[in-house]
Amino acid sequence: MRFDIISCQPDLLESPFSHSILKRAQNKGLVEVHIHDLRKFAINKHGQIDDYAFGGGAGMVMMIEPIDKCISGLQAELSYDAIIYMTPDGQTLNQKIANQFSLLQNVIILCGHYKGVDERVRQKFITHEISIGDYVLSGGELGAAVLADAIIRIVPGVLNDESSALTDSFQDGLLAPPVYTRPADYKGLQVPEVLLSGDTPKVEQWRFEQAITRTRERRPDLLNE
Amino acid sequence: MRFDIISCQPDLLESPFSHSILKRAQNKGLVEVHIHDLRKFAINKHGQIDDYAFGGGAGMVMMIEPIDKCISGLQAELSYDAIIYMTPDGQTLNQKIANQFSLLQNVIILCGHYKGVDERVRQKFITHEISIGDYVLSGGELGAAVLADAIIRIVPGVLNDESSALTDSFQDGLLAPPVYTRPADYKGLQVPEVLLSGDTPKVEQWRFEQAITRTRERRPDLLNE
Repeated sequence: MRFDIISCQPDLLESPFSHSILKRAQNKGLVEVHIHDLRKFAINKHGQIDDYAFGGGAGMVMMIEPIDKCISGLQAELSYDAIIYMTPDGQTLNQKIANQFSLLQNVIILCGHYKGVDERVRQKFITHEISIGDYVLSGGELGAAVLADAIIRIVPGVLNDESSALTDSFQDGLLAPPVYTRPADYKGLQVPEVLLSGDTPKVEQWRFEQAITRTRERRPDLLNE
Repeated sequence: MRFDIISCQPDLLESPFSHSILKRAQNKGLVEVHIHDLRKFAINKHGQIDDYAFGGGAGMVMMIEPIDKCISGLQAELSYDAIIYMTPDGQTLNQKIANQFSLLQNVIILCGHYKGVDERVRQKFITHEISIGDYVLSGGELGAAVLADAIIRIVPGVLNDESSALTDSFQDGLLAPPVYTRPADYKGLQVPEVLLSGDTPKVEQWRFEQAITRTRERRPDLLNE
């Protein structure tokens, strides 16, 4: 799977893709990540890529021309399955959407900044608008990193043990049950007996009940979906 | 405001805090961010901080002892208003929660990794459990960066123009209206007439109507809150 991420702050994207699972996925040849600096497509030699909003008001708006040049250049080389714009008013990301995106081949992610992109960019180029949650960030870069991470970790072969992802929260519509590791007694705090019993069916039953209880307490909305 | 972020993958957190608004907030002395490598608190010289889950199953669990040592060391020096654990089964972050956190002074953020932390960490140390959305990431680091970004940008003095943040999506319970910038005509794509009219009250009216329309179409749930 290939990601082309367009950003006016490409430095922000360095470390998330240079370590851990995202790095390993690239090293294994399962994923390619290309980061494009929007300033290279500026409309003048001052590196301009944004301007004041028509109609007035605080905050700058990202211009259509540099984005057009960057996206058109990419499309001239490759066919893309999705051109995603990260924006707080987009569709809210969830595990199901991440699962669906993980089946695509070539994806462009455009990071907004300031007050966002000129609306005509959205009309002309964007196929999916995604928000990572109901809050505003200083730019779309963290959102793009979150989206890419959620997708990349479920690309087959990326995780060493794929059964691990299947027991994550949300994959089965339930929150994950509590987990414990050694020592069994830490300053008087005990691990539940059943987990030390070695009785696998009993452990599985306990985990399922805990997952149900936790979901009912914390996220009853997930049980009604 | 001071953030102490505890992570077993501190390299992942480098670039989000070294650029853009988060860097500027630190340079202005408005925000301090300290990143702590959990491996320095490992239980042995092999750097061990995780172990298999009691009861079996795929995935490693972060042990309580290194986290206890790290948090206790911080608390010996400073009093903390919140000790936040980033976890998919936590309370879902929204703008209101970010606003509330921005009023705190000293905050610890613990990043989960693998299958998460030993449940006893949550019982003993954690005051708030936060999820950035209904999807699973490879670790809590991106979540911590998202949470810190959402908070830091609304700390007074961080944004050069604070009125800009007030018109963001979610601050007034509405999605933001579309924005446009030059040129007024781009390859036949036009900017709405009203934005070129210079008639400020008419522009404000149009933006309000667009915000309502957009929210009704995309996020009717926000109108019922």
